[in-house]
Formats: sequence, structure tokens, C-alpha cells
Amino acid sequence: MTFTTRTPRIVAARRLQRRRDRDQTGRFLAEGPQAVREALAAGVVVELFGTDAALNRHGDLALLAPSASAVDEDAIEALTETVQPQGIVAVCEQMDVTLSAALAKRPRLVAVVAEIRDPGNAGTVLRTADAAGADAVIFAGDAVDPYNGKCVRASAGSLFHVDVVRTGLDLVDELRDYGLQTLATSGYGADDLDSLLDEGALAAPTAWIFGSEAHGLPKDLLEAADRQVRVPIYGGAESLNLAAAAAVCLYASARAHR
Amino acid sequence: MTFTTRTPRIVAARRLQRRRDRDQTGRFLAEGPQAVREALAAGVVVELFGTDAALNRHGDLALLAPSASAVDEDAIEALTETVQPQGIVAVCEQMDVTLSAALAKRPRLVAVVAEIRDPGNAGTVLRTADAAGADAVIFAGDAVDPYNGKCVRASAGSLFHVDVVRTGLDLVDELRDYGLQTLATSGYGADDLDSLLDEGALAAPTAWIFGSEAHGLPKDLLEAADRQVRVPIYGGAESLNLAAAAAVCLYASARAHR
Repeated sequence: MTFTTRTPRIVAARRLQRRRDRDQTGRFLAEGPQAVREALAAGVVVELFGTDAALNRHGDLALLAPSASAVDEDAIEALTETVQPQGIVAVCEQMDVTLSAALAKRPRLVAVVAEIRDPGNAGTVLRTADAAGADAVIFAGDAVDPYNGKCVRASAGSLFHVDVVRTGLDLVDELRDYGLQTLATSGYGADDLDSLLDEGALAAPTAWIFGSEAHGLPKDLLEAADRQVRVPIYGGAESLNLAAAAAVCLYASARAHR
Repeated sequence: MTFTTRTPRIVAARRLQRRRDRDQTGRFLAEGPQAVREALAAGVVVELFGTDAALNRHGDLALLAPSASAVDEDAIEALTETVQPQGIVAVCEQMDVTLSAALAKRPRLVAVVAEIRDPGNAGTVLRTADAAGADAVIFAGDAVDPYNGKCVRASAGSLFHVDVVRTGLDLVDELRDYGLQTLATSGYGADDLDSLLDEGALAAPTAWIFGSEAHGLPKDLLEAADRQVRVPIYGGAESLNLAAAAAVCLYASARAHR
């Protein structure tokens, strides 16, 4: 039996494209073979849907899933958001952990994104943080949903590799309690990244705190942090975009932690 | 007199949203007050169009432009591509220079993007290269048009700050002739960025060569470069996205060049 857009399980899965339904059910969608493979490895797949062709092509994934069902072309199109869907999508359990649980593991490198709204940016920070060896990415305040489809795709699987935390903006004390220095990025920061590197300040366990490109960091959070750090601008640009700034800061820490 | 979508100069300007017309006329569009200001500073504005409200709000820009004309709401909507256009758009002369002209200035840091197709990525690399103090960004081979509207916007003004070059893929010899070491990025590079930093190899004038995210660098270009360099991946991610990799590499050079 091939599921269609009217099959109740497809109707329910499709609703996970909306944040309200993701929040209510604690589930989300991961599309494409790479994301499905990572989700299976993370043990969070509830059920897998694919076209006959895709399920045949990715038989290994279908075998590993708790349940795999064939769906027609219209159904796969309704469930996926990319222009060239690869015919396969998994319903997954959300896997975020509490701030305490993430910090109890004594991470040496953590990225905090505060009130960032753009899912593509959030996903890129997840990917970059994972590449730089960060253990956790913390979505603070009124931030984008990390399980937003665009965020999941931009993370390129990294959503499944790091501890994802959602918490409020008043997190600096708890970060500090667990031995992390808190470095808030700001175009007007008193310290620049080069000075921190020169003085060896990045060798300590660090939480980098990034704000949205449009609004920067909320004032309270910026002032609560141990230091306000600017990425030096050597040329004529006014600033870096969020993904680039995060890459420069997180990789500076990664190198200092080697 | 207020121009409408049917006014010949608006019809002609609107065609600049298409690459063919940009290539034929050597012109392009810069939208929004920030880009228009940078274009005026670079001396490349041919004419300015704005709604009455926008021209009043940005009277300084209207005064600096060789010609400023009021247009109706439909015309400004037709000329701009953003969801919230800010009512002002300039027709500009393209300003790229030849590879020889850019290299004759003896740049110490250059970014090459080879066959990259995504205009948002290209614009972000322009912005990041400018921030890191690069003197030129070279679009090699069958790359996106740097004057594509999305690239112009993602560059956040940096298109007007650096030398933009369009050339073929066989550029390594010429880079080398001008004293630049050529570092090609690859996930499988023999050298990693940390080793280069450890041995002090980034102090020399450098051309970083980046490929597209989907396909990497063309084999000939990769092999022609002095070294093939990978950005170390400390965590579970497979790779960095282009913007993040470029930020890490260019900032490593910028710091070594201080």
C-alpha cells in the first residue's frame, strides 16, 4: 500500500512543517538521505517515508528505520521543502537537552545564539560549531526553532552531532558556574579577537555568544558576559555576517584548545 | 514628472536584473541606501531612481548622483528584488578590472572563487574577504556574475571596496608571477591550516582559492596550486560551508599579516 497526501500519517507528518505542531508533538522532519542517515545514527527516527525508487536506492536506511512506508510522488512533494527532494523523509523525535544536562558534561567549547531569527544562519552556526569541535549549541531567548526545516538542512547533519539546548537569555551565571568563560561578540567590543589570542585567553573553556545580524546581542546579555569581543575588520567592510564571525571565533578557540 | 514602469529608462534599468543585459551594457543595479552610498563613493553611479519619500529621506544621495529621478511605487517595486525595498536604486557602471591590473598593485591577500554558482555565497565571500583586508576577489571560470542582485546585496557594500576580477581558470601562473603563494582549499588537502600556521607559512602574500560547495575545485586548478589545504574538522561535521571556510582561511592570513 502506497501512502498519499490524504493518508492520516502523511497529514500528521506534513503538519510538522509548522512550528506550532513541532512544539506540540516534540517531533520534526529530516529530509534527504544524508539527514536521514544521521537521524538514524542518533536513534531519533520514528518513521520513514519514501518513494518506491528512493526506498530501493536507500535500502540500508529503510532497514534501519523502526518503520518505513512507501508514499506517492505527491506525498513526498508535500512532505519536503527542497526544490529537488531526494524522495526520502523521516519523522524524528526532537532531542534537545537542558542547559544543565549539556553543561554537566563539562564542555570546553560552546556556541550560544541569542534571539537569532534566520533559520539558515542558525543551521550554518550549528554546522560550523560542530566542525570546530563545539559540544553544544544553545538557542537563547526568542530564537528560531532549531527543528525548522531550513535550519535542519543548513546544519548538514550537525544538528544530530551536538547537544542542542533551548533556554532563556539569563544563562551567563550558569555557564560561568560550569567553568566556561563567556565571550560576547559585538562590533563595539572592548577587546578584539587578536588581543585575546595574543594574551592566550582562548585556551580556557569558552562559551561564545552571538547575536542576530540585524540587532546584535540584547544589552543585558552583552553586559553579563565576561568580555565583549569584536572580530577585527582589516578592510572596508562594516562587519562580518553571523556565519563568518562565528567561524572565525570558534576556530580561534579550536586552535587554542588543540 | 514621476517615472512609471513604462518609462523607457525604467524599462531599460529593469532589464539589468538579467545577466545578459548586464553583460551587454556593462551596468548593474544597486538597491537600498547603503549600497547606493557605497556606489556613489566609488564613483560608478549613472543614475538614481527613488520614490518621492525615499529621495527626500536620502537627499544627500540624490544630490551626489549625476541624475536623480522620482519613480512611482510600481516602478520601484519592479526595479528592486528585496521583500522590503527601501525605495531607492542606482544604475551603476560595472567596475571590474583585469587580473594584471589587480596584481600590479602587489596585493598581499587575494581570494579566488572558482566556478561558484551561488550568488549569496559569492557576495558573502566578497564581504568576508574585504573584512579580512583582501585587496581583490577573483571570479574564475564559469562563476556567478558578481553584479547579480543577490550577490551585490550579500556583499553589503564590499563589492565596491575590493578589486573585482573576472578571468579564466588558468590563473595560477600569473598569481605566482606576482609573488603570491597559491593555497587551494580542499577537504582532502595534504596540509591542514593548523600546520601552515605552525610553520609560519601564512606570513607570505597569499591567494586563497575556493571552489563551489557542491563540486569543490576543478582538478587542474587544484593541482596547479602551490599547496592543497584543508580546514581541520575537529567535530562530527563533514565539512564547512564555503562562507565559513573562507572566513577561517582569510582571517588566518589576516592575522599572520598583521
